[in-house]
Amino acid sequence: MKTIYTFGNGKAEGRADMRDLLGGKGANLAEMNLIGVPVPPGFTITTDVCKLYVSKGREAVVELIKDDVVKSIHHIESLTGNKFDDPDNPQLVSVRSGAPISMPGMMDTVLNLGINDAVAETLAKKSGNPRFAWDSYRRFVQMYGDVVLGMKPQNKTDIDPFEEIIDKVKAEKGVKLDIELDVDDLKKLTVLFKEAVKKNTGKEFPTSAWDQLWGAIYAVFDSWNNDRAILYRQMNQIPDEIGTAVNVQAMVYGNMGNTSATGVAFSRDAATGENIFNGEYLINAQGEDVVSGVRTPQQIMTEGSRRWAELQGIDEEERKAKYPSLEETMPECAAQLVEIQQRLENHYHDMQDMEFTIQNGKLWLLQTRNGKRTGAAMVKIAMDLLREGQIDEKTVIKRIEPTKLDELLHPVFDKAALDSARRVAKGLPASPGAASGQIVFFADDAEKWAQDGKQVIMVRLETSPEDLRGMTVAQGILTNRGGMTSHAAVVARGMGKCCVSGAGEIKVSYKNRTVEMGGKTYHEGDWISLNGSTGKVYDGQVKTVDVDMSGDFKAVMDLADKYTKMQVYTNADSPRDAKVARRFGAKGIGLCRTEHMFFEGDRIKAMREMIIAENVERRKAALAKLLPLQRGDFEGMFEAMSGYEVTIRLLDPPLHEFVPQDTASQEELAQELGVTLDHIKHVVASLKEVNPMLGHRGCRLGNTYPEITEMQTRAIIEAAINVQDKGFEVHPKIMIPLVGVYNEIKMQADIINRTAEAVFKERGKRVSYKIGTMIEIPRAALIADQIAKVADFFSFGTNDLTQMTFGYSRDDVGKFLNDYIKAGILKNDPFQILDQEGVGQLIKMAAQKGRATKPNINLGICGEHGGEPSSVKFCASLNFDYVSCSPYRVPIARIAAAQGALEN
Amino acid sequence: MKTIYTFGNGKAEGRADMRDLLGGKGANLAEMNLIGVPVPPGFTITTDVCKLYVSKGREAVVELIKDDVVKSIHHIESLTGNKFDDPDNPQLVSVRSGAPISMPGMMDTVLNLGINDAVAETLAKKSGNPRFAWDSYRRFVQMYGDVVLGMKPQNKTDIDPFEEIIDKVKAEKGVKLDIELDVDDLKKLTVLFKEAVKKNTGKEFPTSAWDQLWGAIYAVFDSWNNDRAILYRQMNQIPDEIGTAVNVQAMVYGNMGNTSATGVAFSRDAATGENIFNGEYLINAQGEDVVSGVRTPQQIMTEGSRRWAELQGIDEEERKAKYPSLEETMPECAAQLVEIQQRLENHYHDMQDMEFTIQNGKLWLLQTRNGKRTGAAMVKIAMDLLREGQIDEKTVIKRIEPTKLDELLHPVFDKAALDSARRVAKGLPASPGAASGQIVFFADDAEKWAQDGKQVIMVRLETSPEDLRGMTVAQGILTNRGGMTSHAAVVARGMGKCCVSGAGEIKVSYKNRTVEMGGKTYHEGDWISLNGSTGKVYDGQVKTVDVDMSGDFKAVMDLADKYTKMQVYTNADSPRDAKVARRFGAKGIGLCRTEHMFFEGDRIKAMREMIIAENVERRKAALAKLLPLQRGDFEGMFEAMSGYEVTIRLLDPPLHEFVPQDTASQEELAQELGVTLDHIKHVVASLKEVNPMLGHRGCRLGNTYPEITEMQTRAIIEAAINVQDKGFEVHPKIMIPLVGVYNEIKMQADIINRTAEAVFKERGKRVSYKIGTMIEIPRAALIADQIAKVADFFSFGTNDLTQMTFGYSRDDVGKFLNDYIKAGILKNDPFQILDQEGVGQLIKMAAQKGRATKPNINLGICGEHGGEPSSVKFCASLNFDYVSCSPYRVPIARIAAAQGALEN
Repeated sequence: MKTIYTFGNGKAEGRADMRDLLGGKGANLAEMNLIGVPVPPGFTITTDVCKLYVSKGREAVVELIKDDVVKSIHHIESLTGNKFDDPDNPQLVSVRSGAPISMPGMMDTVLNLGINDAVAETLAKKSGNPRFAWDSYRRFVQMYGDVVLGMKPQNKTDIDPFEEIIDKVKAEKGVKLDIELDVDDLKKLTVLFKEAVKKNTGKEFPTSAWDQLWGAIYAVFDSWNNDRAILYRQMNQIPDEIGTAVNVQAMVYGNMGNTSATGVAFSRDAATGENIFNGEYLINAQGEDVVSGVRTPQQIMTEGSRRWAELQGIDEEERKAKYPSLEETMPECAAQLVEIQQRLENHYHDMQDMEFTIQNGKLWLLQTRNGKRTGAAMVKIAMDLLREGQIDEKTVIKRIEPTKLDELLHPVFDKAALDSARRVAKGLPASPGAASGQIVFFADDAEKWAQDGKQVIMVRLETSPEDLRGMTVAQGILTNRGGMTSHAAVVARGMGKCCVSGAGEIKVSYKNRTVEMGGKTYHEGDWISLNGSTGKVYDGQVKTVDVDMSGDFKAVMDLADKYTKMQVYTNADSPRDAKVARRFGAKGIGLCRTEHMFFEGDRIKAMREMIIAENVERRKAALAKLLPLQRGDFEGMFEAMSGYEVTIRLLDPPLHEFVPQDTASQEELAQELGVTLDHIKHVVASLKEVNPMLGHRGCRLGNTYPEITEMQTRAIIEAAINVQDKGFEVHPKIMIPLVGVYNEIKMQADIINRTAEAVFKERGKRVSYKIGTMIEIPRAALIADQIAKVADFFSFGTNDLTQMTFGYSRDDVGKFLNDYIKAGILKNDPFQILDQEGVGQLIKMAAQKGRATKPNINLGICGEHGGEPSSVKFCASLNFDYVSCSPYRVPIARIAAAQGALEN
Repeated sequence: MKTIYTFGNGKAEGRADMRDLLGGKGANLAEMNLIGVPVPPGFTITTDVCKLYVSKGREAVVELIKDDVVKSIHHIESLTGNKFDDPDNPQLVSVRSGAPISMPGMMDTVLNLGINDAVAETLAKKSGNPRFAWDSYRRFVQMYGDVVLGMKPQNKTDIDPFEEIIDKVKAEKGVKLDIELDVDDLKKLTVLFKEAVKKNTGKEFPTSAWDQLWGAIYAVFDSWNNDRAILYRQMNQIPDEIGTAVNVQAMVYGNMGNTSATGVAFSRDAATGENIFNGEYLINAQGEDVVSGVRTPQQIMTEGSRRWAELQGIDEEERKAKYPSLEETMPECAAQLVEIQQRLENHYHDMQDMEFTIQNGKLWLLQTRNGKRTGAAMVKIAMDLLREGQIDEKTVIKRIEPTKLDELLHPVFDKAALDSARRVAKGLPASPGAASGQIVFFADDAEKWAQDGKQVIMVRLETSPEDLRGMTVAQGILTNRGGMTSHAAVVARGMGKCCVSGAGEIKVSYKNRTVEMGGKTYHEGDWISLNGSTGKVYDGQVKTVDVDMSGDFKAVMDLADKYTKMQVYTNADSPRDAKVARRFGAKGIGLCRTEHMFFEGDRIKAMREMIIAENVERRKAALAKLLPLQRGDFEGMFEAMSGYEVTIRLLDPPLHEFVPQDTASQEELAQELGVTLDHIKHVVASLKEVNPMLGHRGCRLGNTYPEITEMQTRAIIEAAINVQDKGFEVHPKIMIPLVGVYNEIKMQADIINRTAEAVFKERGKRVSYKIGTMIEIPRAALIADQIAKVADFFSFGTNDLTQMTFGYSRDDVGKFLNDYIKAGILKNDPFQILDQEGVGQLIKMAAQKGRATKPNINLGICGEHGGEPSSVKFCASLNFDYVSCSPYRVPIARIAAAQGALEN
């Protein structure tokens, strides 16, 4: 059994594909050696050793690897010419953990291992920088004490014993910053640190490099089974058995003097995706100096340096003097770096983010990884690499992070304008995009102001269907209450409208028409700006810019369509939404909610008349008024979606959502309908429910009031015939909501078929239509084999299915969801990311049962999850026919669907 | 293939065990012949013929059975000496359907088939009763027209064309009753009827007996696939393939004169179970005369007749003259009947309910079946039959209808008193028993009045946990709203207290302290009586009687325990309930709800203080006040259940149930706690939820406020140690409610174990305890394999599991449930009878998954279904360890569990 793999000087015993054995870090260090990149030499103790450590214990493992560790340290010494544990010519090393899957919660890094008093003296002399030597030493003692000897407090609010000592020393000296401590202070700190270790552990701090090394190795292996690591594995379904590797590597320093430097570099521009090598460095510095902001980092390339100086208003002379490029200061190293970054990109076929250190004129790469980038850069780089022949089409698709596309689909704030904007509140990023407008509090006002040509932002405690018209004309919506799936959030996403929800810190007063936030009282008409992608709210009007959606974006989308096996439909309640979605590539409507239509214009009156009706005849009379309006709605939808399927859901929400709750409106309604206020109040009270989510709604309405289903079916079929007559191609699908019992769908289907046949007879022509159901009640999934006898299609309503499978009310889950995610009880919000383990099990079961009855049954989902990538891939893995999502999520779903097809 | 089985004159080709082939009725008619009971001769066309009729069509079947039908009619003729289709010596027959499983919705019966004008004349002459002949004729035409020729309106509100004619004829004659029509009128009706048939069907009414017979046979087979029959089969999971048989039998008449009679008889007393043959008869009468109440029926036995006369205040002379027994009027027939009833009982080994007809001095049995009986009679008869050696122990258990035991467990109204009582309202029979009391509307008053020694009935719109103390002292509860599983109903059943819920017609005014019902306004203090077994409400005070629970009742229960494999536990929240349940045979507590305890006495104050607390410290301080109180509660439970398991559920309901909703109480609370009213109002508002059922409750509370779980665990463990110290045997089980995610139970279990260990350390001794969970969220069933890693036991909370699996809110389901049951969408209320198809699937899955992880995991249920027989049997079929139900349902569950064990 080979327990250790060495690397260094262009050779390595491991490879990139030995990730399971060497961990991600170890495999990658080996690979860089193999392609000739200069990497400090070292070795990797395998994950197999970790497994043995867990099963057989420490002694067995030491016995097994002792000789190999010594040999491997000699391997490092032979390449560097230094000696481990030798005060005259010391070799220091770093020790890092590295599992096959990146795993926070484990022991991470110990640097400068091998140091002691004598070594520190030697380092001070050799580097000519005693401060560096002693700072390294005291840092090592602290790091080793905290991490290896377990002195770091478990509770974050408790104080690290080493920090306590530093504070005391600084206080005695009367200084505030670490940098103000001199060499003597650092020496003193080291002594105090070691005393603290003795007091705490009862043992002297180890001065032998070998003792230090073994302690660090044990610490890595022990950390594999600490509570945080176990919890992380549980939450991420990582097996406990895979173990971690240990990487030991020679230390190199960028702060050894003026021929030393350190920096970070990107093989392409991470913001725009342009193929320009770029990066920053500092001479005589450590890695953390580059990012700490104490010194101003310089550009690696002269070209980039000049552009940078121009932006900063620095002239060429000053630039050359104060901020020369690496090309100018260390031309050989710079040329080598340019060559290496190209080699790494060509090898990994992706934009690389690299860390390097130059020690005494010699360049070392410490890390390379695929670089993080913006959505725009992601798209451009992928398509550029395709055109360069570096990657193929499938790889382009796999490279796209679907959610990042969102950045490309909504207006965004101008970066400069945003930098100077004042943030006044933060809520949930409920619906992406940027918007500025004048504050209004009521839907009526929003409409009036918008008619006057004003841009408005609706600010509400929460929204309800009555606010719909106001939301339609507003630039954005800000609410005090409600989560990512609150009414405001769901509706806004459907409209592609910017929304910040659940901003708990703002104080809304409808009475005074004010909202307090960021220490200021805003009145109706004051300007604010919302970033729905971040949840941030800004004072005043912040400038926005639009993003280009053609070019590479379109090319990526075309590739997705080429490889996908699943269609992407959209949830749309109006022809306008349908058109937007079609532009984004939607291939049908998977959910058209008819209830939103009932709030438009005067039709709410007829709706209310229907609800208040005391008998079937009066109800039918009121429904007759709604019929032509609904028919008109559906005609618009069918025309906008000509050639594609349009799935119309029958009335779903409980009736109480349609009746006025305040006495004034109730009085008005009573007068209009010629009934008493008492009667209205009685009806409104009788509609009240303890748990409306589980109440009289969905097909329960259609089954207790069949005349509603009749009217809606008539409107759909008549509209389909009318639009077909105009030469369009119509494909209506009628969807019955909230089915849980076989007879529910059977009876609804009977009504639909009977009504459709009646219309066909009247009109003397037919259209083909399909009948299906939402699977959104757990019981529906359990008896899907029966339901499929009647249903042509299933559309999984994952919002409600999640509510009932978990027993969580979307409206109330905010009371404990954040606590649950913080405590690690839930990995994430199941209303955002489909719970494949629980809810997914029901979906899978329903799909199987449905197909057992009807092999070609049409399957899709239309919950909020239809636009969430992991959920879309889950649907693809079940060979669904389509997912349906809000218009602005269509491109995201298209990519995710294609990725799902490639993964299967 | 034998298509027809004949019977008659003590011979039969069929047998009782040929039910599948001959249907229930046909098999039974054959059997009676075989044991020598005189039955009018006839024949049965098999279910196989029906199957052919469905698959091959009418012609094929006629071809197949034509000759056999003719032969079988000759068989009847040979035994009766009459001739079918012969006007001089006519043989009339009845035609009845009869499937292997009794099935309403099909064609039922056509009597007097074979009649026409000539036959009617003959009948009139032979019987000397022309009215009988012509009434039989016109009835036949109507029955045949309705049933065979399809003239019965499908819609129940439409008028039967024949009834229309009768009404017209009666109107012309100026009479009101059918009986007022004379022979000429009946002749006229027959003519009009036949005209209506011609008008309606386009064909003459068939005068040939053979045509009539074939028409009736077709009609039976056709009715197998009519809508109602199909729906009934669907709802009752009866296979479509089994088909129905057709029974053709010679007619006999009890109204041929004074040597003819008809009656019904019981082999034992159906009310008391006493072994006394009894029954009623009428001379010269038809079956329907006995039950119609126009004439007073006479007793069969002289002994019975004397007892009857005494009760009626009729002296022996008058009795003998007006109401002689059959023994006195037709001694030979009576003696024969006595002998036959004994033979039938000995044959069927059960009390028989018989119909007989005496035609011209000759006794015929038309039907025998196991007789309906009261709960008391059921128990007595079963035990008597066991002692008589007629049946064995297992049969005794199978014979008990579990729900009928309920009659034996609660006080009932005195029958005579009830007869004269005025019914003023009707609600749901929410909790059985009878109770009288004075009306009170508020819990406080109930307590005060009860302290004064008054009997009170609480009348409420609905009840809440705040009413608990009032309910405890009340005789019964009447509510305006809420179903069988409303708060009032569930709590009342738990207390074994009479409750009528959801009496929608009553009008309660808290303000006036009045309730309007039955046209009268009742004030506080007025007397009413409730029957919780029927849902009826009576004016005034109705006398009640208690029932004996020893003797045969105890004997039956002992038998149940001998054969059951599943234990019956009880749901009990107080030592008093626990003791009652133990007396009823409960072997443990399956659910002790700790929240009810928080309402008792002053402890609600500490509970509120805990909820209002702004931080952990204050919350812990309030919990510390609750600790000794809870510990005391648990001590009482452990003592009462010494030797048995006590399952204690941690806090479950949402906190808003504990805080006062009205400003006055809130002000009081604010003063007590020294906080502002605004703060109280803020907390109360923040606890409000849109769907509290799916909100912040169950273990979600324990996970966000771990200190609650700590306090409750400490109370349980300390109580267990204290009670163990006193010499009792304690078996605490700690039950975590509303688990849906693995980490929820893991974290709760960690808290419980940690707390328990702390207590053990403090006290220096240990008790063994178990940790388990309710499976009441669909997701919990889906991931039961994970949950079982932590849980020692699962208790299925079928109430909530039903709510979430169906998506029905128990509190709101009343809005559509009745409509659903009426329309046949649901077979019954899933909150009363466990939905084995949907919810049961989840239970089965969870049981399998749980056992896969932990083969010996302890399984039970504690929902309302734990006392419902079919649900208990379902649990038995899954080899559950226990079911838990309210104390008064324990005996029912014990029998059902034993029956389940015998069925497996």
